[in-house]
Amino acid sequence: MRMYDIIKKKRDGGELTREEIGFFIGGVTDGSIPDYQITALLMAIYFRGMTVRETCDLTFAVRDSGEKVDFSAIKGIRADKHSTGGVGDKTSLVVAPVVASLGLKVAKMSGRGLGHTGGTVDKLESIDGFRTTLSDEEFIGQVNGIGLAIVGQSKQFAPADKKLYALRDVTATVDSMPLIAASIMGKKLAADDDCIVLDVKTGSGSFMKSVEESRALARLMVDIGKSAGKKIVALITNMDRPLGYAIGNSLEVIEAVETLHGRGPEDLTEVCMTLAGRMLSLAGYGTPEACMQMARRTLSDGSAFRKLLEAVGTQGGDPRLIEDPGRFPRAKFSFSVQSVSEGYIRRVDTEEYGLASLALGAGRNTAEDKIDFSAGIFLRKKTGDHVRKGEEIATLYSSDREKFAPAAAKLLAATEIGSERPEEEALVYDIVE
Amino acid sequence: MRMYDIIKKKRDGGELTREEIGFFIGGVTDGSIPDYQITALLMAIYFRGMTVRETCDLTFAVRDSGEKVDFSAIKGIRADKHSTGGVGDKTSLVVAPVVASLGLKVAKMSGRGLGHTGGTVDKLESIDGFRTTLSDEEFIGQVNGIGLAIVGQSKQFAPADKKLYALRDVTATVDSMPLIAASIMGKKLAADDDCIVLDVKTGSGSFMKSVEESRALARLMVDIGKSAGKKIVALITNMDRPLGYAIGNSLEVIEAVETLHGRGPEDLTEVCMTLAGRMLSLAGYGTPEACMQMARRTLSDGSAFRKLLEAVGTQGGDPRLIEDPGRFPRAKFSFSVQSVSEGYIRRVDTEEYGLASLALGAGRNTAEDKIDFSAGIFLRKKTGDHVRKGEEIATLYSSDREKFAPAAAKLLAATEIGSERPEEEALVYDIVE
Repeated sequence: MRMYDIIKKKRDGGELTREEIGFFIGGVTDGSIPDYQITALLMAIYFRGMTVRETCDLTFAVRDSGEKVDFSAIKGIRADKHSTGGVGDKTSLVVAPVVASLGLKVAKMSGRGLGHTGGTVDKLESIDGFRTTLSDEEFIGQVNGIGLAIVGQSKQFAPADKKLYALRDVTATVDSMPLIAASIMGKKLAADDDCIVLDVKTGSGSFMKSVEESRALARLMVDIGKSAGKKIVALITNMDRPLGYAIGNSLEVIEAVETLHGRGPEDLTEVCMTLAGRMLSLAGYGTPEACMQMARRTLSDGSAFRKLLEAVGTQGGDPRLIEDPGRFPRAKFSFSVQSVSEGYIRRVDTEEYGLASLALGAGRNTAEDKIDFSAGIFLRKKTGDHVRKGEEIATLYSSDREKFAPAAAKLLAATEIGSERPEEEALVYDIVE
Repeated sequence: MRMYDIIKKKRDGGELTREEIGFFIGGVTDGSIPDYQITALLMAIYFRGMTVRETCDLTFAVRDSGEKVDFSAIKGIRADKHSTGGVGDKTSLVVAPVVASLGLKVAKMSGRGLGHTGGTVDKLESIDGFRTTLSDEEFIGQVNGIGLAIVGQSKQFAPADKKLYALRDVTATVDSMPLIAASIMGKKLAADDDCIVLDVKTGSGSFMKSVEESRALARLMVDIGKSAGKKIVALITNMDRPLGYAIGNSLEVIEAVETLHGRGPEDLTEVCMTLAGRMLSLAGYGTPEACMQMARRTLSDGSAFRKLLEAVGTQGGDPRLIEDPGRFPRAKFSFSVQSVSEGYIRRVDTEEYGLASLALGAGRNTAEDKIDFSAGIFLRKKTGDHVRKGEEIATLYSSDREKFAPAAAKLLAATEIGSERPEEEALVYDIVE
């Protein structure tokens, strides 16, 4: 088999066989196929697309490209959620303890943030002492013991995806439905959960700008998951605005803790409860509605909060920060962004909000960048809110004062203020089963 | 400027600016753009195409990517022909001395063969002592002195094309009209001739399989040439059969010498005279018809033959081989390929004939391969000829006996014999001015 023939076949609109896709991913993984042939094929896939069958085979090849963790030692039903990436998306920090407190096993392997979106692992590392690297034994032991452990993905986790993503990122081949689906599902299926709830973010802060696109991606990923024998459902949720008020690592942990106490922002709470309800329902706990009620009770009775506290403590994090989030180290400097006009916030460019937070030090431009854990944005006003001229719309945090001016300018430019109140938008647009 | 943005723009169907194309070719030449971004753009160009303006800018950037030879010291009208590559195509060895004997200056920089097509430089190197590398001073001095010099392209000749071609070759992005045109014309224009006749080979032995495709490529290349201020015309010629009877390096030199004596195959002579007539006509010698007559006279009066003899001697080649081609070293072994059935040769796959010659040692699979100069094929029968069962259709030559069986099998499989005589085909399909 020759890579040249595979490129030519796809270029000419052919359907690649399982063997051809296996040869490709094998060569990506072991380095035997040069990058210039990989990117030529990626661009051909961008133009020609892939059938569902090809996309499934690509996904499974990515899933199988790395070392396997043997999860069979975990007793109980393993469940997880996965978001396609948004701004202010701290749902994992809420949903995981909620469902774990109800008996599901959450063995979560999370990514790091890159560009305008944050990563769960970075957020957890803002908790002093928290270890995001555990041995397989520790990881599985903790899941069996308390139902919840969250670690970073190791280098050997679906390595073909790492390589492919790095090349897609510099060759304008990220925006391809089969490549996106295979990347997300390849990693997700490598974790081998029984029940998977996907959160397909939609709008100005996400990959997918329209509900139609998101629906197509969700359909594809759900079909891939089912063909791998998983219980799976996808939510299509609103990312035309940040979720909650906090953007930035420790700011988001604090907001997640508030949400676990039942005092979180309405939008964040609603999305978290829908996700948790669906996870529980997939696991056989009842209808989605009944499961959502169960989930809400874990907030009011404190059991979800106690589960997070337990998990943080077990993984070496300082539990006092979770008990009293006021103890989190504060950013050295803060800056108040004020509205330059009066009216309603009609819409915001959520990606630009994410980039403003990145510019404050809360994220990474490249995988090597260091994160300023207390940096970020706390929103005072969101889409639909009325503001007066000079009224604060956001507080910026950073350890570097010079970062405020460009971040504030970015934030203001991304905030459209007009005289008419915008229509209410849905939080969950659709559910694809 | 970022390569990423250029890839994305072309991916989305945009028209690249001259600056963007210059940035791309500059980065290809100096190595600052990684191969994986180059091939992603090449594949995007494959799918999206390029406007004539973009193709011109790409061509000129390729032309300007290398060191320049200063041809201004050459006195007179500089003319050249360029073939897109065929099998048995030894026209340069005939046409160059013909027009040089009539006063045109031919400062020819030729390529080497690769795959199923041969190269003029390889053919000349089959002449003992012939030097295909001259200093600029020697090269220009010889052109001024005797009107004709033929050398190989140096490493620094349009280096962007070398790099691009090597990458296209392994990523299935060769068959793209703008990329083909920019490659051919970028190199051709780097030689900076005044008059250019292109020979766009068409049919089973060439890149372009249909006359329509060839016409489009010819139109594009002629437009590029004109926009560079050149006198230029393109012939679309038949490559559904090899040109002449000889395929292989010294075999082709011998046939070219015969043709210069006026004893060459009819098809080869006809194409050579048409090419030469057009070159002379572009240079202002008269109508194409009158110029073709002039060219024919250089065969009958021996002046074209004497010009080749002079050029070979001046470049260090043994003139006795040209005076008496019977002195060329003969292949160690020969093999007679006989027809397995009776009938007319209805059609042949010319590319397969070229590959059979390559398999005998006459060509290169990779740029590093050594050539067996006396290896090749001498056809005894061509399309339209009648053959009896067991009659010889070709003689194979090689220094390695084991190469005969696979080459003969290839040749027979590529030769379609049927009871009906095929219709005559044109030699020159069209002329694009």
